[in-house]
Amino acid sequence: MSGYYSQENHGPFELIDIGDLNLEEGGKIPNCKLAVSIFGQLNAAKDNAILIPTWYSGTSKIMEQVYIGEGRALDPTKYFIIIVNQIGNGLSTSPSNAGEGLQGPAFPFVRISDDVRAQYRLLTEHFGIESLALVVGGSMGAQQTYEWAVRYPEFVKRAAPIAGTAKNSEHDFMFAETLAEALLSDPNYKEGHYASSEQMIAGLKRHAKLWTVMGWSTDFFAANRHRELGFDSMRAFVDEFMTGYFAPMDPNNLLRMIWKWQRADVSRHTAGDLAAALGRIKAKTFVMPISHDMFFPPADAQAEQQLIPDSEFRPLQSIDGHLGLFGTDPAMLEQLDTYLNALLQS
Amino acid sequence: MSGYYSQENHGPFELIDIGDLNLEEGGKIPNCKLAVSIFGQLNAAKDNAILIPTWYSGTSKIMEQVYIGEGRALDPTKYFIIIVNQIGNGLSTSPSNAGEGLQGPAFPFVRISDDVRAQYRLLTEHFGIESLALVVGGSMGAQQTYEWAVRYPEFVKRAAPIAGTAKNSEHDFMFAETLAEALLSDPNYKEGHYASSEQMIAGLKRHAKLWTVMGWSTDFFAANRHRELGFDSMRAFVDEFMTGYFAPMDPNNLLRMIWKWQRADVSRHTAGDLAAALGRIKAKTFVMPISHDMFFPPADAQAEQQLIPDSEFRPLQSIDGHLGLFGTDPAMLEQLDTYLNALLQS
Repeated sequence: MSGYYSQENHGPFELIDIGDLNLEEGGKIPNCKLAVSIFGQLNAAKDNAILIPTWYSGTSKIMEQVYIGEGRALDPTKYFIIIVNQIGNGLSTSPSNAGEGLQGPAFPFVRISDDVRAQYRLLTEHFGIESLALVVGGSMGAQQTYEWAVRYPEFVKRAAPIAGTAKNSEHDFMFAETLAEALLSDPNYKEGHYASSEQMIAGLKRHAKLWTVMGWSTDFFAANRHRELGFDSMRAFVDEFMTGYFAPMDPNNLLRMIWKWQRADVSRHTAGDLAAALGRIKAKTFVMPISHDMFFPPADAQAEQQLIPDSEFRPLQSIDGHLGLFGTDPAMLEQLDTYLNALLQS
Repeated sequence: MSGYYSQENHGPFELIDIGDLNLEEGGKIPNCKLAVSIFGQLNAAKDNAILIPTWYSGTSKIMEQVYIGEGRALDPTKYFIIIVNQIGNGLSTSPSNAGEGLQGPAFPFVRISDDVRAQYRLLTEHFGIESLALVVGGSMGAQQTYEWAVRYPEFVKRAAPIAGTAKNSEHDFMFAETLAEALLSDPNYKEGHYASSEQMIAGLKRHAKLWTVMGWSTDFFAANRHRELGFDSMRAFVDEFMTGYFAPMDPNNLLRMIWKWQRADVSRHTAGDLAAALGRIKAKTFVMPISHDMFFPPADAQAEQQLIPDSEFRPLQSIDGHLGLFGTDPAMLEQLDTYLNALLQS
């Protein structure tokens, strides 16, 4: 594996074959491989495991760098922390790395629930884990966190969905569709048969610009946070930071993740009854939206929190909006650690 | 004039030639024509004139239908109400209707200040008006309202900028750029030499989808306001209402309006000093953002209001967001009328 999705850029991670994964939408991924990064040791009681699923476009690396550390809430000297890269993100089995017949646009449609079933198999069969002290993730990581808590209520002791919801809103679905269309409308896309990400730079750049607009917040730019982060102008921020971040990624990977993101919905377990689905959760749950998040606004998160039996609403204050997940606001990370510590001690 | 930008669709309006208009960015519009709709009578004291400039994509028709009426604040039995279509909107001189040499992509770049100078000439030379009881407009109409109040402080007695700011934010500039790029990236755009709006339907639809996402609000969709407005699904709302609204418009018109919108900035009068520019305003000013507006959030509007000497902050509450301007929320219109009545009585 070379190029952007490499050990050099995102490692160390281990590729673990969990066998064939049958998919909810039909079809299967033969010998599905999950890219996993591990920190700390599983204790004798096997009760200190923490699972971190990943978000759209992200990998285990940013979760490691921004969220894990000695003295932090997610402390590898105390916990056995497993970061599992979502299917399609370029490290786990993905359009960009799949075997014959599943490559690029031939890659099947994977749901959040497929990821969670794959992760369950990984944890139980490969690691012999019998319960999770915590599942914590942001954005699509929060979608996976909710799916975990609803699907395996006995297994998940605590849950911390950050900046994401259990059932994706119609508004967010359309947000994500505009991101997809920035890629799909690139004349070089060719139904997914582009020659390289370089050829898709126009679409990737428009996709990056939409993320610039929707991912942060008006207050972020008004407060010149983009300049504080080291960019002279909005233009430099878009061209260097945001486009620089997305440009090397594989559009087919991104598109399959968008498809998955759009359709996250734990109420699929209960014939569309969201209250019934969330009512199943036994995990102590801290629902943590980010105050200025345009994709997953606090009101949406709070409406769901009120349906979860043993839950608290713990919004994170940050004008950095959704992409505060990148760790750009140290004060927000401090709040997060405070809340996670409280949750872990409960 | 036939097709979308017709008297049948948007009239009655009168086309008034204000002569050659020299433009700030260089060049000129020879025999610039402003499309004007008039309601009521100018009184003997000539002190009952109200000016309404128009917003992006809008024409005098929606202002008439949604904002003017007997018993309303903008009452044609009391006031002489002049709605002036902005240059480039398809009714006034625009890429779609300009004479030889200025058509389509050859149309010059027009600034908010050019519109306001053109309107001043219209009011003073054509109508003999010596002052305005009120300038009121939404979005780009608010941008023109601010320009009026700063440029002609003695002329404007009252100002009511709704859902817009005096100096466009960097964030809003980028919002608008994504709208422009939805059109510019259409392979049929051909540097503005497309054959018809029909050929540009892909770009126009993506542009409509971005407006769907950004123009309303998360709460609007969560509350099923789109269904209340008569659409079965988000898809129907995008395809029928939003795309139906934008599809017949001329992309070159839209692009020149976006360019203008992005660069609105009254501090151009004062070498970039926004406080100095807004400090010039003598009009009694009610600053009226819409609570859930993503383009022009209340915080941005309030920061400016605090720099205007005789001003009040009067936010309008509506989950309909920016496009509440369309008049979809009767309660918001009621608030607006209450505030405008108070302003007009001051």
